[in-house]
Amino acid sequence: MAKLYHVPLSPFCRKVRLSLAEKKIELELIEERYWEKEADFLRRNPAAKVPVLKIDGKTLAESTAICEYIEERYPEPPLMPRAAEARYEVRRLVGWFDDKFHNEVTSKLLYERINKKVMGLGFPDSGNIKSGARAIKYHLDYMAWLLDHRRWLAGDTMTLADFCAAAHLSALDYISDVDWNRQDSVKDWYAKIKSRPAFRSILADVIPGFPPPRHYADLDF
Amino acid sequence: MAKLYHVPLSPFCRKVRLSLAEKKIELELIEERYWEKEADFLRRNPAAKVPVLKIDGKTLAESTAICEYIEERYPEPPLMPRAAEARYEVRRLVGWFDDKFHNEVTSKLLYERINKKVMGLGFPDSGNIKSGARAIKYHLDYMAWLLDHRRWLAGDTMTLADFCAAAHLSALDYISDVDWNRQDSVKDWYAKIKSRPAFRSILADVIPGFPPPRHYADLDF
Repeated sequence: MAKLYHVPLSPFCRKVRLSLAEKKIELELIEERYWEKEADFLRRNPAAKVPVLKIDGKTLAESTAICEYIEERYPEPPLMPRAAEARYEVRRLVGWFDDKFHNEVTSKLLYERINKKVMGLGFPDSGNIKSGARAIKYHLDYMAWLLDHRRWLAGDTMTLADFCAAAHLSALDYISDVDWNRQDSVKDWYAKIKSRPAFRSILADVIPGFPPPRHYADLDF
Repeated sequence: MAKLYHVPLSPFCRKVRLSLAEKKIELELIEERYWEKEADFLRRNPAAKVPVLKIDGKTLAESTAICEYIEERYPEPPLMPRAAEARYEVRRLVGWFDDKFHNEVTSKLLYERINKKVMGLGFPDSGNIKSGARAIKYHLDYMAWLLDHRRWLAGDTMTLADFCAAAHLSALDYISDVDWNRQDSVKDWYAKIKSRPAFRSILADVIPGFPPPRHYADLDF
């Protein structure tokens, strides 16, 4: 069975979990306190980051490289379209969320509110929280603009771009940092993703000391 | 002809330039002062980042998504191997350099010494410079460890991973921040890449007010 070394709220781990679950690849989840840089874990991944996936007798790191690998080795059901142009758009959006959204929103809200506490790094910085809360509005509006033209974020089929965006938003939803009333189309999109069987494991996550709000796992939120 | 909106020392732009040049795709380079967020440029890329590539009648952003697109549309000569496992290793290393190396080294040295000045953001922060100078040693050692086992960074053929690493190192070499005497195998690897025709445009870059050191364009450095 595949094994994933992860932390539950990491959007990068969630992206991999969603891809594997959608492809019905059975997975054992192992929580990894990667910031403690335990020697065994460093051997698995010298970058000292999660996710790390053990699959097909190999140990893999870097969430996007992992997802591309899964897609190539386990193509059904596809999370990437066939045409180069459409594949480009999926990868552009994965880059958008894992880089821009992550820097402007996820790191400012989730890392301030949760990671700092869990890692013993002190209190949230209110300037960062404000900046993240401001930036997420712009990103939700951008998603709504995409969804005005398309059924899913990158086009007419669900792709890795949707899982990537949902990985970030679901982690932020765990700390009630997503205003689902801002854009109806984004809420509808998230409701569709949230009701997929692949999402169940993520909705069942509970962080000790940080219980999720009631709406987090509710499909009718 | 394809057009690239870029800044000369950006490693992300250099990675795209190297890929296009290796595939002999003719390119017009247009310097873009992206930090001034001029309206026309924001229309080309709402992320307000370079590179932005106009090719095949399309406007593309996000350097890794661009390079994957180029590879799929212009497969010869290949910069990605065929097997899923080998492709994974290329993508893992591209992630390593564009994420980890970038955060720990490029942003600490290049951005402090050059970008801050060009963008009018004040003086370099000496703490960042020290941290970048310390981190690059570890990265050069990691590259040497890879090159002990392989002819190129990701395996026995030259790939996008080599261009990605060379894009970062060449930009740092422009400001004399690479100690080529630290690891012979890394120096040999860079000498091989540097002598490729695809590298010529990068070696000809000159930033007004920051002339390159003599060894920068010298193939026998």
